[in-house]
Amino acid sequence: MRAYRAVEDLARRGHRLDHARAMLKWDEAVMMPAGGSDARAETLAELAVLSHENASRPEIPDLIATAWAELEAAGDDPEVAWMRANLREFEHGWRSEVALPADLVARSTRASVTSEHAWRRLRVENDWEGFRPHLENVLELKQQEAAIRAGISGLEPHDALIELYDPGTRSATLDPVFADLKAFLPDFIAAVVERQRTENVIPLEGPFPIDAQRDLALEMMGHIGFDFSRGRLDVSHHPFCGGAPGDVRITTRYNESDFARSFMAVLHETGHARYEQGRDPESSGQPATRARGMGVHESQSLFTEMQVARSPEFLAFAAPIMRRHFRIEDDAPGWDADNLHRVYTRVRPGHIRVDADEATYPVHVILRYELEKALLSGDLAVDDLPGAWDEKMRAGLGLATGDNHHDGCMQDVHWAAGLFGYFPSYTLGALIAAQLMATLRREHPSLDDEVRQGRFENIGAWLERRIWSRGSQLTTPDLLEEATGQALDPQYFKAHLQRRYLGTEA
Amino acid sequence: MRAYRAVEDLARRGHRLDHARAMLKWDEAVMMPAGGSDARAETLAELAVLSHENASRPEIPDLIATAWAELEAAGDDPEVAWMRANLREFEHGWRSEVALPADLVARSTRASVTSEHAWRRLRVENDWEGFRPHLENVLELKQQEAAIRAGISGLEPHDALIELYDPGTRSATLDPVFADLKAFLPDFIAAVVERQRTENVIPLEGPFPIDAQRDLALEMMGHIGFDFSRGRLDVSHHPFCGGAPGDVRITTRYNESDFARSFMAVLHETGHARYEQGRDPESSGQPATRARGMGVHESQSLFTEMQVARSPEFLAFAAPIMRRHFRIEDDAPGWDADNLHRVYTRVRPGHIRVDADEATYPVHVILRYELEKALLSGDLAVDDLPGAWDEKMRAGLGLATGDNHHDGCMQDVHWAAGLFGYFPSYTLGALIAAQLMATLRREHPSLDDEVRQGRFENIGAWLERRIWSRGSQLTTPDLLEEATGQALDPQYFKAHLQRRYLGTEA
Repeated sequence: MRAYRAVEDLARRGHRLDHARAMLKWDEAVMMPAGGSDARAETLAELAVLSHENASRPEIPDLIATAWAELEAAGDDPEVAWMRANLREFEHGWRSEVALPADLVARSTRASVTSEHAWRRLRVENDWEGFRPHLENVLELKQQEAAIRAGISGLEPHDALIELYDPGTRSATLDPVFADLKAFLPDFIAAVVERQRTENVIPLEGPFPIDAQRDLALEMMGHIGFDFSRGRLDVSHHPFCGGAPGDVRITTRYNESDFARSFMAVLHETGHARYEQGRDPESSGQPATRARGMGVHESQSLFTEMQVARSPEFLAFAAPIMRRHFRIEDDAPGWDADNLHRVYTRVRPGHIRVDADEATYPVHVILRYELEKALLSGDLAVDDLPGAWDEKMRAGLGLATGDNHHDGCMQDVHWAAGLFGYFPSYTLGALIAAQLMATLRREHPSLDDEVRQGRFENIGAWLERRIWSRGSQLTTPDLLEEATGQALDPQYFKAHLQRRYLGTEA
Repeated sequence: MRAYRAVEDLARRGHRLDHARAMLKWDEAVMMPAGGSDARAETLAELAVLSHENASRPEIPDLIATAWAELEAAGDDPEVAWMRANLREFEHGWRSEVALPADLVARSTRASVTSEHAWRRLRVENDWEGFRPHLENVLELKQQEAAIRAGISGLEPHDALIELYDPGTRSATLDPVFADLKAFLPDFIAAVVERQRTENVIPLEGPFPIDAQRDLALEMMGHIGFDFSRGRLDVSHHPFCGGAPGDVRITTRYNESDFARSFMAVLHETGHARYEQGRDPESSGQPATRARGMGVHESQSLFTEMQVARSPEFLAFAAPIMRRHFRIEDDAPGWDADNLHRVYTRVRPGHIRVDADEATYPVHVILRYELEKALLSGDLAVDDLPGAWDEKMRAGLGLATGDNHHDGCMQDVHWAAGLFGYFPSYTLGALIAAQLMATLRREHPSLDDEVRQGRFENIGAWLERRIWSRGSQLTTPDLLEEATGQALDPQYFKAHLQRRYLGTEA
């Protein structure tokens, strides 16, 4: 086991560098004064170099080969099976790390940093013509990267990029699922909008003091099961979940005149955080204990936010707690569970993905998925992106984008920063979350009652067993199959939408 | 200049690793939940290994030799002089880094960590017999380290350890200065105590809300010149100044029933922070821009706290600001500048160094300096330490320690953690601060008026020119000579004490 143990050692060293980077990035977003940014960028770059040096040591290919031989000779007990998964993940990471020539990595990094920087300014100015050359530059390098990765892995180029964020997920799986949703959603959304037209939603009037919002968020995190001895909640411009296992940092932002959004954003990040906190601490630092990928990660945040927290049962539990924190009378109009549920299930097509509700969100994602595939293959020129965007927004949500690039194809940082292949994870996560919830509900018929009483232990224990503790031992499709007994099936998400928004069972 | 530039490059890489470690240590003390401590320790250890690997690369000796040849051929303009200082500092750091055999470093690190850990528990239990073997173990390894370092540098063993914290400072300088203070202080302290016996000090009655204390601290930091675009104030169990240039993190702790102590502690740390913020940002990461050492660093914190902030002029400026933050009437008893000055200049011999006032503090330091010298040389056995401590406390402050080890030789973390040679810096800092103030006052006769008006720009500009911007270009003695026109002279500190506490000019 000498070679295999050496692999574990390298993994552990790499993990520690990742840990340092994660904490420094958290600090950058949450704590760092503006004057620290140059030095921080240099320090993070230095750690990235050291991380790459560690992950691409020349002895690694031999170590991996010897370790495989060691494990093949070691029999078949569960511990060895775990080691095999660990070695497979290590090898996967190493292949990805050394796939690209150093000069392409350097050029891509430079291009992405420059482009993201430009995007921050140019988006505000709605300056598509200024941004276009940046995106063309990033895309061209991304096409090179995709071609190289595809050549090595035998995947399609787009799949080779998706693989970076969601190992095991393929266009061949996504295409029919997304086609199904595309067929379903327009009529569904129209029906929900029509139904909600006559609904009486009482707006929640602020101001909501920040301290009260924070106390409410902390209390709800505690109910859900967030472990404060191994994590924190802070404030940053964009909410995120960062840090390291054993020390998970989630963030939110507060708005005195609107608590509802931040409240749900905290629960979303709590879902991410619980996944991180629930990973196997014993073998921490080993690839097999890592979170499975972006799709599964998003499934955990959306499970908490969409499947649990926006349910009538949860809001019945939360309503009195909200009123207590904001010192609102029990019979104040709008603060009953029914109205809160109406507030939290409002469907309204809009231009902006990050503002989208649960029903319209997949339209935004599928649009991007299709467009990035066409951009990568060369079927769509960057020059034609705004037109294609406008067309798909009209078809999917009945909204024109026109020359409003700020709220159109320039709204997301992803492509500007070189993140092609990332978008599908969001909707994959929503589908997995619904499929997990359907399974859990089948196995635990008392689930709704438990949620209404604020008891989440069974949910947490089930997710820990089926998802969190499984780390990266299985591919995403195998993990889903093991957890739910079947492959990805969009019927659960559609049924969930129909039940919640139209009151019909599928 | 190829070799010299390569040296700068290595220095920059090392600096970035230091930066990462400093930030992770800040986070550990200020932000980290308890569950993160194991992973944090591992990550910090990994970074320490990488830092050592970088600082002891096998090519360094050749690079240094070639770089010296390059700089000797490069003439004598100021830029080259700066490079020489930089190379000298780099070489000094490298020699220190590679001086010890790896197994001694490993054993010392383990011993110190174990001993410090044990100390935290055993001090609380006043368990000297439990602690003694830990200290013996640490001391024995420290003696080995001192012998090796002395052999390489040609310094005395104690000096070779002092050199780690305060390059250029020698026992031969400290001995007569400390002897002078030892002769002066007992009678002086007795006279001050006698004089203060009849003083009417009105105690400041709380509670003082934490938010108000923080707002007051932040306002005063701003007046003094702390740059909030390049630093922050937070809370930790032990106040400290950490972070990195461009991003200086100071901490304090608050007590609702006593604001006076935290207020002064913040100003103390602000003095440290200003030094860090005032270092040359252009060449950041190069050894010549580093703070000169612990003694000079402490001189900057004590300059702000003792020379400026405890002066009657400063307290006249601060009194109305304090009253405003605590919503206290202008004529409330005790809140006038005179009473505040009495509060802040109270002299009372006590057992605990960190609680000591300005006049008795050097007694604590000189006692430790003498005892650690005797421990290192073997003249004093660890077993005899409590007795020697008791004897010196009686002689210096008229206080017996007896079997109260908690408040005797077990009160400080330093020796437990292997920090031998560190203590003299505290009093060296106090002496330098007084000497700097005497020089500044001579050059700026309007200084007291400026302080009374809350104008600190001239003080800041003077310190920046004389100390901060000089980094490590000069040794401590040369820096002091350049800044004040003469060598270290305790008369300034004594004159300061006599003026402040007895109202007499020396």
